[in-house]
Amino acid sequence: MTSLMNRQDLEFLLFDMLDADALCERERFAEHNRDTFLAVLDTAEKIATDKFAPHAHEADEHEPTFDGQRVNMIPQVKEAVRAFADAGFLAAGHDYEWGGMQLPVTVAQACLTLFRSANTPTSAYLFLTSANANLIRAFGSDAQKQRFLPNLLSGRWLGTMALTEPHAGSSVPDARTSATPVGDGTYRIRGNKIFISGGDHELSENIVHLVLARLPGAPAGAGGLSLFLVPKFRVNEDGTLGSRNDVALAGLIHKMGYRGTTSTMLAFGENDDCIGELVGEPNRGLNCMFHMMNEARIGVGLGAAVLGYTGYRHALEYARTRTQGRPANAKDPSSPQIPIIEHADVRRMLLKQKAYVEGGLALCMTGARLADDANTAPDAAQRQEAAMLLPLLTPIIKSWPAQFCLEANSLAIQVLGGYGYTREYPVERLYRDNRLNPLHEGTHGIQGMDLLGRKVGMDDGAAMTVLGRHIAQAVAAAGAHTDERLVSAASALQAEWNALTETTRTLLAAVRQDRTAGLANASIYLETFGRTVVAWIWLRQALAATAAHQAGRCSADFLAGKLAACRWFFDCELPQNAAQHALLRRLDDNALSMQEEWF
Amino acid sequence: MTSLMNRQDLEFLLFDMLDADALCERERFAEHNRDTFLAVLDTAEKIATDKFAPHAHEADEHEPTFDGQRVNMIPQVKEAVRAFADAGFLAAGHDYEWGGMQLPVTVAQACLTLFRSANTPTSAYLFLTSANANLIRAFGSDAQKQRFLPNLLSGRWLGTMALTEPHAGSSVPDARTSATPVGDGTYRIRGNKIFISGGDHELSENIVHLVLARLPGAPAGAGGLSLFLVPKFRVNEDGTLGSRNDVALAGLIHKMGYRGTTSTMLAFGENDDCIGELVGEPNRGLNCMFHMMNEARIGVGLGAAVLGYTGYRHALEYARTRTQGRPANAKDPSSPQIPIIEHADVRRMLLKQKAYVEGGLALCMTGARLADDANTAPDAAQRQEAAMLLPLLTPIIKSWPAQFCLEANSLAIQVLGGYGYTREYPVERLYRDNRLNPLHEGTHGIQGMDLLGRKVGMDDGAAMTVLGRHIAQAVAAAGAHTDERLVSAASALQAEWNALTETTRTLLAAVRQDRTAGLANASIYLETFGRTVVAWIWLRQALAATAAHQAGRCSADFLAGKLAACRWFFDCELPQNAAQHALLRRLDDNALSMQEEWF
Repeated sequence: MTSLMNRQDLEFLLFDMLDADALCERERFAEHNRDTFLAVLDTAEKIATDKFAPHAHEADEHEPTFDGQRVNMIPQVKEAVRAFADAGFLAAGHDYEWGGMQLPVTVAQACLTLFRSANTPTSAYLFLTSANANLIRAFGSDAQKQRFLPNLLSGRWLGTMALTEPHAGSSVPDARTSATPVGDGTYRIRGNKIFISGGDHELSENIVHLVLARLPGAPAGAGGLSLFLVPKFRVNEDGTLGSRNDVALAGLIHKMGYRGTTSTMLAFGENDDCIGELVGEPNRGLNCMFHMMNEARIGVGLGAAVLGYTGYRHALEYARTRTQGRPANAKDPSSPQIPIIEHADVRRMLLKQKAYVEGGLALCMTGARLADDANTAPDAAQRQEAAMLLPLLTPIIKSWPAQFCLEANSLAIQVLGGYGYTREYPVERLYRDNRLNPLHEGTHGIQGMDLLGRKVGMDDGAAMTVLGRHIAQAVAAAGAHTDERLVSAASALQAEWNALTETTRTLLAAVRQDRTAGLANASIYLETFGRTVVAWIWLRQALAATAAHQAGRCSADFLAGKLAACRWFFDCELPQNAAQHALLRRLDDNALSMQEEWF
Repeated sequence: MTSLMNRQDLEFLLFDMLDADALCERERFAEHNRDTFLAVLDTAEKIATDKFAPHAHEADEHEPTFDGQRVNMIPQVKEAVRAFADAGFLAAGHDYEWGGMQLPVTVAQACLTLFRSANTPTSAYLFLTSANANLIRAFGSDAQKQRFLPNLLSGRWLGTMALTEPHAGSSVPDARTSATPVGDGTYRIRGNKIFISGGDHELSENIVHLVLARLPGAPAGAGGLSLFLVPKFRVNEDGTLGSRNDVALAGLIHKMGYRGTTSTMLAFGENDDCIGELVGEPNRGLNCMFHMMNEARIGVGLGAAVLGYTGYRHALEYARTRTQGRPANAKDPSSPQIPIIEHADVRRMLLKQKAYVEGGLALCMTGARLADDANTAPDAAQRQEAAMLLPLLTPIIKSWPAQFCLEANSLAIQVLGGYGYTREYPVERLYRDNRLNPLHEGTHGIQGMDLLGRKVGMDDGAAMTVLGRHIAQAVAAAGAHTDERLVSAASALQAEWNALTETTRTLLAAVRQDRTAGLANASIYLETFGRTVVAWIWLRQALAATAAHQAGRCSADFLAGKLAACRWFFDCELPQNAAQHALLRRLDDNALSMQEEWF
């Protein structure tokens, strides 16, 4: 079987590109060192290999069913959930006092890539629970933390995030679910939610839903939503389980991929007996959610990158072993067939995948490192800088891997040919799984609006200034290099950054004048911006690999691979920006001027 | 329910762009006129709607199973097959003497789009049978035609094309299946085939396989393959069924999509008792296949275009009725939500789909018209010109819709958001179905090699000269137009064509010098070439729609839609060629210089 992630690449990112060693100098991580990081990666790899990978195919072929009473699924999912929880991964980043490992986000996320790679849908139950627990940790009262966190972090209970409603979809502020005070400090919840992943199952003793709902008289829109803790089984004051709450599974949703994860329609309070408790301040529910969104979106981006990465690994193994055809120059039809990796077009598809998936992974890991810096950098200015840069990059981290690592999955199928289209090989499943990522946690359209409509202009473009400084650092380092290829990449990146800032100026002026017209091509801007950012990430990888090789920490082949993928990105991907800059700068009105009756 | 194809668009293509009326002046089609064409379209639409569309979802959810004896599938497939055959569509293009309708390829293919749109996998059994019957008509002996054609054209028997073998995949010339003369004029067939669509089922009394196999002592490679007729049940001299032949179903292949069509592994002659008969000349089997390949590849392109088209139609209907969110300028969160088609980004995604799917459909229909001209144009020079142009365009027709109409399917999912990912809506199924099209009948890589390695340089580039003349005609017509938009599109197309001929010159020189290096980026060349061709197709559609509107044959909205999609293509798609021309002209060696051990 193909191994999961390339461990060498993961360790390169952690230690050579992102200097995870330096994190151990921070007080919060003082008990860690490179050995503890590697040990936890080993544990993750072992559990992922033994408990997650083996049932990935079966979970896809036998999706969960609902018999009207319970959700049934293959038993291996529960075993995997237990193994993950028992090894402490649900609490990987949490405080020692809660039984956590106090791992940096960077290292925790590196571990999680192994589980995602082995089995994304089974992992999802756990990642949702982590996100849920993080929210309770950040906004819950002490009593709520005492009653909920230990059971969530041990995996006895699992959690969900219940935002979306059938009539509102992406327009979360239109949520109608209501919360009426009972008088004893709790609330009666009423409403319907849809697409709630992990919304019902028999994997845990309880399921803790975090539900956005509206208090009586709350203002319309985003500013009138509050966050509620609504467990499937009520939780007594001492943390023990109480009676069944009025949360009903209205149905399972059948999906193209991600089939192992239940996606549910939930009915809260059909019998007017659904009790929830408020988390955080009234009408601040969406703010609580947004507070966690950066990490959630790093998670989605990483998920997309890892699905692409895993497909690439399978395609690579296939291309090395499958013989077919002969070189274009060959004359003798009875000469032996060659491994398909020797065909230029197959190599092109593999190199493109490598550029996408290693670029996507490094991008998301960079986001994780920024999360660490925002939380724990010793210097306040550094914390602030990271806290500005991460939100700017978040729409890119969410969307770029979802777009291009999905494309990598498609290329992996293409490498396998007809076999890639069959369910005997995992590449088609990875492609189906990854197709979710451009949709959830904000579509590309929404990420584009977030980037152009909010992030780049915020505080007079302060975050852009920070990003420009980071890019200038990479350009300076590469420009001063002895390797000619790095020097030319440096000047290409600088030119692209200049073009992007120019385009951004034009668009921001347009947005100020007419928001609708200015934002009409926000999705294209998102793509152009993303390509520039990933070029920066690739240049940093090339620099880090060069240094690692000079220091004897990586092989010549590993370095050559990074340089080749970096060169591919600069030669064959980055030039696609030019046409998009032209389109953006002329405020192309093709979409905007199209009339409904012309379709 | 969303209707299938846009009938208005189909008729526009037939009568305004491709002048199907003129075909009726040819002797072969003398009994036809616009009314008979429309009547047969009506019949197709009715059967597609009543018999094909209703079970499309169910056939996907309940794929065929093999119990060791028989293949089981939902009964509606057989009913649909019967209805199609009973209405005479299997013989749509065949001679009256064989019970055919003697329809032009153009009209027959327009009818078939309706069945594909309703249910691609069920249609596949029928289209394969048509292809099989066409081959027997072209290369079979009179006796073979008498024994096989009536039953195939009536649908009592169905047919397959059995080329691919497990060890050879796309490298068909490496086929090892053997054919040994028995002495009575028949042959004993032995070998294994894979990915044989419709290779087994209970839909018909017999299944007629056309099998590539190798005679004793035949040369290695393509020149040693012969074509054999190998029925599941032997066929007596009088055309009645004989005993079971030694063709065994070794297994069904489970696929990502296209699930309603059985894909099979077939074992011929496991008990050394598989009897076949030679079709055509010995060692000319691949030539027979290639003879039919143009039409087969038009079929694949059309299939891809129609799947994209159908997804677009669903997305459009959804976007018109689904309300969500508010204009970017809106301030009041309690104002009503708007239909999502009003969001610029949704409109962009719909317009892009329209440009892809209507462009793809018009491209393939243009191919069908060329097939008619090659077969039946009154003038020999016109026949010859068509016979040169069609093979040149075939790799584009095969690949462009498979790439971009698949992308349209992805955009359709994106328009539906989370709902698009569920199996409650057809868009995800259409996407899965369409993912096959870049793989079968020659992958993009193979089409690129065919285009650059064979077609463009053939006869000193004679076919390119013909295409250049056709493009110049469209450029001249549009350049002389009063509509400013058409004038500027004309000059953009001319510039693109000049760029393409320049790039082609450079690449052909490189191919002559070193075939491997010259062909290394053939897939990218294919894409660049395709974009140029589809720009030409869009300009022709814009011209035809303008004329149709002036003549009162289409509405102002219809014209505006065609002009808007044409403008989108020229403004937002065609400029992507520039970066690719640069890459191609510098003979980019990124893929070629990548070493296996660097991955």
